[in-house]
Amino acid sequence: MNLPNRVTITEVGTRDGFQAEKEFISTEAKIDILNQMMDAGVPRIEYSSFVSPRAVPQLADTVEVLEGVDRGRATLVALIANAKGAERAAAAKCDELVMVLSASESHNKKNVNRSVDESLAGMDEIMRHAAGAGIPVHGAIATAFGCPFEGNVPTEQIVRIAKHLKSAGFAGVGLGDTTGMATPPLVHATCAALHDEVPDFPVSLHFHNTRGIGLCNVMAGLSEGVTEYESSIGGLGGCPFAPGATGNICTEDLVYLLHEMGIETGIDLDALCDVASSVEATVKHGLPGQVMKAGHRLHLHDIEAAITAKG
Amino acid sequence: MNLPNRVTITEVGTRDGFQAEKEFISTEAKIDILNQMMDAGVPRIEYSSFVSPRAVPQLADTVEVLEGVDRGRATLVALIANAKGAERAAAAKCDELVMVLSASESHNKKNVNRSVDESLAGMDEIMRHAAGAGIPVHGAIATAFGCPFEGNVPTEQIVRIAKHLKSAGFAGVGLGDTTGMATPPLVHATCAALHDEVPDFPVSLHFHNTRGIGLCNVMAGLSEGVTEYESSIGGLGGCPFAPGATGNICTEDLVYLLHEMGIETGIDLDALCDVASSVEATVKHGLPGQVMKAGHRLHLHDIEAAITAKG
Repeated sequence: MNLPNRVTITEVGTRDGFQAEKEFISTEAKIDILNQMMDAGVPRIEYSSFVSPRAVPQLADTVEVLEGVDRGRATLVALIANAKGAERAAAAKCDELVMVLSASESHNKKNVNRSVDESLAGMDEIMRHAAGAGIPVHGAIATAFGCPFEGNVPTEQIVRIAKHLKSAGFAGVGLGDTTGMATPPLVHATCAALHDEVPDFPVSLHFHNTRGIGLCNVMAGLSEGVTEYESSIGGLGGCPFAPGATGNICTEDLVYLLHEMGIETGIDLDALCDVASSVEATVKHGLPGQVMKAGHRLHLHDIEAAITAKG
Repeated sequence: MNLPNRVTITEVGTRDGFQAEKEFISTEAKIDILNQMMDAGVPRIEYSSFVSPRAVPQLADTVEVLEGVDRGRATLVALIANAKGAERAAAAKCDELVMVLSASESHNKKNVNRSVDESLAGMDEIMRHAAGAGIPVHGAIATAFGCPFEGNVPTEQIVRIAKHLKSAGFAGVGLGDTTGMATPPLVHATCAALHDEVPDFPVSLHFHNTRGIGLCNVMAGLSEGVTEYESSIGGLGGCPFAPGATGNICTEDLVYLLHEMGIETGIDLDALCDVASSVEATVKHGLPGQVMKAGHRLHLHDIEAAITAKG
């Protein structure tokens, strides 16, 4: 396999993870966690979203958080779902925007109450707001590897949306594995189709670990030459369709895998594990991340103190 | 990648998983779970061990369990650590034996109170007991990808032990990732070395998910042509060195990954998820398996009943 030497990780825990938390996390705690992430070397953070505070009350403080964090150390990205969000995010001076729509009609209707074509038709207005403020906009295609209501999503639909985004002036496209339906063969097929049919348009991959194979999908993406991945600190987040199931892939576990494969991220793994512990204390429940519990592989143990391990 | 068409999974939950359970699981419950696994099509099961009942009280009923289960539907394997275990297991008429030793001196000392060479010197006597009963014996090299006390283990040590096992008449060698220190590059390097230096000697891989990358290591093994993997129902088990960390890779998640990659196992995934739920009820605590919670990817949901999913 011809693997990339370096990948860029976008941390989405304070957006995709926190929005699943029922208890409101204080603005101060959010700012503190974001600053800690940047201290650990995280280069890009989808820090919050500009969507209706009624729909996602946890992220209602998106402007205050942006005003409070240290700027200039990482690219701070906000999720938006429509032109109004783009306008607010541009006024707040986010570094970059991510516009989300779903590949499947039923999920887009449920998520943003619009048809896919209605979402696509709104792209030009979004670009006007962002371009006016000099802010790059990326697209994010939710349910890119399958829809929890409709099942398989045709690769042609991903290609069609990506072509539209490219021609509208978007900076790249993210493929969102919203409910963990991606598999290595699907990742290979979809990335290859985008590479062939929408060339010179950067692709990022956003996997969930809902079925335990999120990092296997990263390996498939790496073998297709994809260098941008999204993940969540501690594996923060969940799945609204499967109680107890995991959400986003875990950033520390991803960083550990990449470093062990000889791929640079610029992130300090030990420092990131400390941030994960801090996030765990903030949300007051356990997180599914593994490396935060076990440490990296050469964290050795004292034989005298050890319990006998078998197998 | 040139992947195998079919792999053989050995279920180790009732051995490697149960031995970590503090509360004794009744012999009847063990028999019931083993029969359920065979109903689901699991072809090979490391069902228990013949070791000191004082060291592992949970598995003290190994003879009674073997007498109670339905025979002839799956290969029932017992773990042993010395000649006495081989003698007892042969008398009990196990289908196959697995003799465990560690690649690192300190772990072997801690685990079986012997040096590596002392373990190797005992192989001939073990083979005599097993050969007399017509029972194949496999070797299992614990700490094959790293030792929690010593760190990295030289590939030469794995090759040396495998050569010894082969010449002693063993049927194959398993590489045990006892505390989850394997990585894809280590798996590639070790499997390639065994392939080159100990040819025609079957290799099986036993990974733990302690650091979240267990199934990534399976993908590395598949790309090296390895067709035998060990895993634990529901991800049952743990890590004595990292409280809260995961143990063996989860059988349902492994089966899901393999089937999605077009690789046959002969196992019914839905039936296996039901067994995992039954095991969860038996041990009375949650298990880390993901597919048992979320179902396979085309388990669809009713849009009207669904909670809005974002991201």
